[in-house]
Amino acid sequence: MNIIISRELSIPIYMQITQQIREAIFNGELPAGYRLLPERKLAEQLGVNRSTVLNAYVELKSEGLIESFVGKGTVVLPLNSADAPAASTQLPGYSTPPWRQLFSERSFSAGDPLIRDLLSLSKRNDSISFSVALPDPGPKLTVKLREQLQLLMQEKSDSLWKHTATEGIHSLREAICMWMEKRGIHAAAEEVLILSGSQQGIDLLTRVFIDPGDIIFVEEPSYFSAMQSFRSAGARLMGIPADTDGQMRLDILESMLAKYHPKLIYVLPTFQNPSGLVMNQDVRERLLELAYRYKTIIVEDDPYCDLRYSGHHVPPIHAMDRHDHVIYLSTFSKLIGSGLRMGWLSAPKSVIRQLAIAKQMADLHTSTLSQFLMERMIRSGLLEEHLNDMRNRYHRRKQLMVAALHKYEVPGMTWQEPEGGVFIWCRMPAGLNANELMLRAADRGVDYLPGNPFFAQVPQTAYVRLNFSCAEEDSIDEGIRRFVLAVHDTMDARRYHQTGNRTEGLDPII
Amino acid sequence: MNIIISRELSIPIYMQITQQIREAIFNGELPAGYRLLPERKLAEQLGVNRSTVLNAYVELKSEGLIESFVGKGTVVLPLNSADAPAASTQLPGYSTPPWRQLFSERSFSAGDPLIRDLLSLSKRNDSISFSVALPDPGPKLTVKLREQLQLLMQEKSDSLWKHTATEGIHSLREAICMWMEKRGIHAAAEEVLILSGSQQGIDLLTRVFIDPGDIIFVEEPSYFSAMQSFRSAGARLMGIPADTDGQMRLDILESMLAKYHPKLIYVLPTFQNPSGLVMNQDVRERLLELAYRYKTIIVEDDPYCDLRYSGHHVPPIHAMDRHDHVIYLSTFSKLIGSGLRMGWLSAPKSVIRQLAIAKQMADLHTSTLSQFLMERMIRSGLLEEHLNDMRNRYHRRKQLMVAALHKYEVPGMTWQEPEGGVFIWCRMPAGLNANELMLRAADRGVDYLPGNPFFAQVPQTAYVRLNFSCAEEDSIDEGIRRFVLAVHDTMDARRYHQTGNRTEGLDPII
Repeated sequence: MNIIISRELSIPIYMQITQQIREAIFNGELPAGYRLLPERKLAEQLGVNRSTVLNAYVELKSEGLIESFVGKGTVVLPLNSADAPAASTQLPGYSTPPWRQLFSERSFSAGDPLIRDLLSLSKRNDSISFSVALPDPGPKLTVKLREQLQLLMQEKSDSLWKHTATEGIHSLREAICMWMEKRGIHAAAEEVLILSGSQQGIDLLTRVFIDPGDIIFVEEPSYFSAMQSFRSAGARLMGIPADTDGQMRLDILESMLAKYHPKLIYVLPTFQNPSGLVMNQDVRERLLELAYRYKTIIVEDDPYCDLRYSGHHVPPIHAMDRHDHVIYLSTFSKLIGSGLRMGWLSAPKSVIRQLAIAKQMADLHTSTLSQFLMERMIRSGLLEEHLNDMRNRYHRRKQLMVAALHKYEVPGMTWQEPEGGVFIWCRMPAGLNANELMLRAADRGVDYLPGNPFFAQVPQTAYVRLNFSCAEEDSIDEGIRRFVLAVHDTMDARRYHQTGNRTEGLDPII
Repeated sequence: MNIIISRELSIPIYMQITQQIREAIFNGELPAGYRLLPERKLAEQLGVNRSTVLNAYVELKSEGLIESFVGKGTVVLPLNSADAPAASTQLPGYSTPPWRQLFSERSFSAGDPLIRDLLSLSKRNDSISFSVALPDPGPKLTVKLREQLQLLMQEKSDSLWKHTATEGIHSLREAICMWMEKRGIHAAAEEVLILSGSQQGIDLLTRVFIDPGDIIFVEEPSYFSAMQSFRSAGARLMGIPADTDGQMRLDILESMLAKYHPKLIYVLPTFQNPSGLVMNQDVRERLLELAYRYKTIIVEDDPYCDLRYSGHHVPPIHAMDRHDHVIYLSTFSKLIGSGLRMGWLSAPKSVIRQLAIAKQMADLHTSTLSQFLMERMIRSGLLEEHLNDMRNRYHRRKQLMVAALHKYEVPGMTWQEPEGGVFIWCRMPAGLNANELMLRAADRGVDYLPGNPFFAQVPQTAYVRLNFSCAEEDSIDEGIRRFVLAVHDTMDARRYHQTGNRTEGLDPII
């Protein structure tokens, strides 16, 4: 077979190899039993690192398409039962099912697992991570949580392990209303649904609101994981662009509203993922007014509201809403830890009811212990105390990253300093491919997320999302140094490609 | 409007009232602002209890269709924004969105919330409950869990709150393999997916395998909650009947396999929900053989495997499978408590991988603390110890229920004594409607589940599912006494209907 790789594509090379071998297996070009080239040999032929081929083979193995046998090498497995050799442990004539052909269409429609693949790539060495936005709550929190858990075990004893209502424990729902008051939101406990993490909120909204073909407006860029969920239900995503200050273009929004009548407008107005920016109060008000006028719903995803380090609090759109047009999502995962699996959603009662029916089918209810623990953290004031500590630490990390970005300046790279949240969003110098950069950064020992999965329509490879909340303080400067070195590596390689005598990015191979 | 109620229908009367008022609101017969009759008055007109009408109004309120105002009574709310009155807190011209019209088709396709409605009905008094199959693990377990949690807090400290892999913590997956060994199943950790409760397993299987129109075979009867999930994805369910011993009719299965090529066969072979019966080893083997021959997948749902009180262990179908045709689901919810939200699934690696992608979209991963705690419970041997205790208590409760059913014998009612699990499944005397019985049982202060939602195709109203694991030992005899009284009430009322001079079940009312 011919494997053709292109270094100009936005797809990492190991994935290009994976895709082409996979296709050759599916179309019968590589039949069951076919022996693939050893990794080292294929790597030589393709002029790539051995680890790149290794990655491709690992991927194909995990898909059940190939397998390595001692003494025999790596061979193609039978695709479906008709071709299966009768192994000694199997009854003659029978074989394992052709799983891939049994999976639903929906299970393939979520989009490509690019980010997961890229992350697994970056986990191989002692790299400095600016990629995943997991919280780093600090050692003091552990002590607080332990104390509260002790008290809980004394007070609640066996009710910690019991069933709760699908909507959540009522007293926790009340405590969350108190918490939302600080953000300017007035809601009743019955307007709150407890979630097993805010990802579940996205998932339930997808189930309850999205029929195939429904249109959803998102900011451009927007949170890729939410877009992935919407897409998996067959939604059509349309991105609303921003002006040069990162503010949503309301003129474009309005003309698109008039034309497309979306089911939902999904926004992250505060310290957006990925841009880190805040939507102005004025834009929020006008966006809400447009939602009223065009009778559409706003889904406001607000995980970072409490992480402001400078400037003034801008109330959530939900707080301004007088006609119940906003469904509000938030989470404790970004404050305490993802392990807790606790988020919430605030919406009118009739919406909560429909979402609760969907939640009942999804997981019955959220972990009882997590619910009780979070209630105690809010009511005791410990969550607020912890937040002050966390904000100080995150603020320092942000300042360190900003300082490093100034210190190792890249000509042509632009970014805006955020007032809170956990991201800095960089636009790379013209012509630099952020996915290629990703691989070079991995070589240099630093990882981040490339910007393209954050775009709803045409992927833009000019952006990079840097997270500053997870890396240790004393590694941030070094991480940015490595990142900037990788930028230079990539620009140098590009010049080589442009001036060299190789066929531009096309390497035909046996 | 005319409200017509029928006492012969399988639908409780309050739901009949709800449905008709709802329809009248939707078709405009009852416009916004229309004042409904006071509960007492409507109850008089219909010749029903006031609480029946109260229930109907509560339902309609929760759907956002009506509202009660002091001094004004109960009025119909505006259905959609165009009709909405401008309340003083609202901007002129705007109103709340017509939510019901925005919900997806899928969100209505799960089937009716009958059971939820019936349960809320039964929760109003101090009734003895034979309905929901929640575990009653006993006081000793609480102490064990507390000790393990203490140890966990010392050992794991802050990792209790951190992110885990979507597939689950690897050492827990290994511990679950050890646990499955006791059941005769040999699996590797990579063939195990940790679930946030086994309901999530059903949900993920639905996402990954079901396209609209796919056919799923289920036992007749089968677990209604699984059927509800399958239906919500547009699956077509077909029930495979049982012979008089409760064993699946394999001859019928085979002819249906040849004709319909189902995507999955969903079975609960051990202490089935609702029948409490066990599929013979011979039937299991032949079922598996048919799955091989017709290249279809068996989903084996096995929550009650460890709850055997007499007779011999029959290995799960998964344990007999030599060609990876079985996806196996189980849970700790029935042993420890639903609050933990922990179940697992065992399947070939390629299936685990696809399910993990779906799980990532559903809730990222399962509660970290629940995972660590469960691992400790298995590895320390405490789970096994607890199970012995639990089996003793459940066994006693089963014996008490069996004794009471003999003592208060109902002529014509038949049932089979189960060797384990938590259910006794009763076939009622000919002509007795189990849903009507349900309401009369609620009046007598006992609740159970009616059998009809457990049938995939034609609902059968002749069955009743009694759960014996939740009620206190000293209340079981009294509960069965009340149940049998309700049976007599219903039979008496039926005779009245048949011999009385009222129009048979039809009561036209203004």
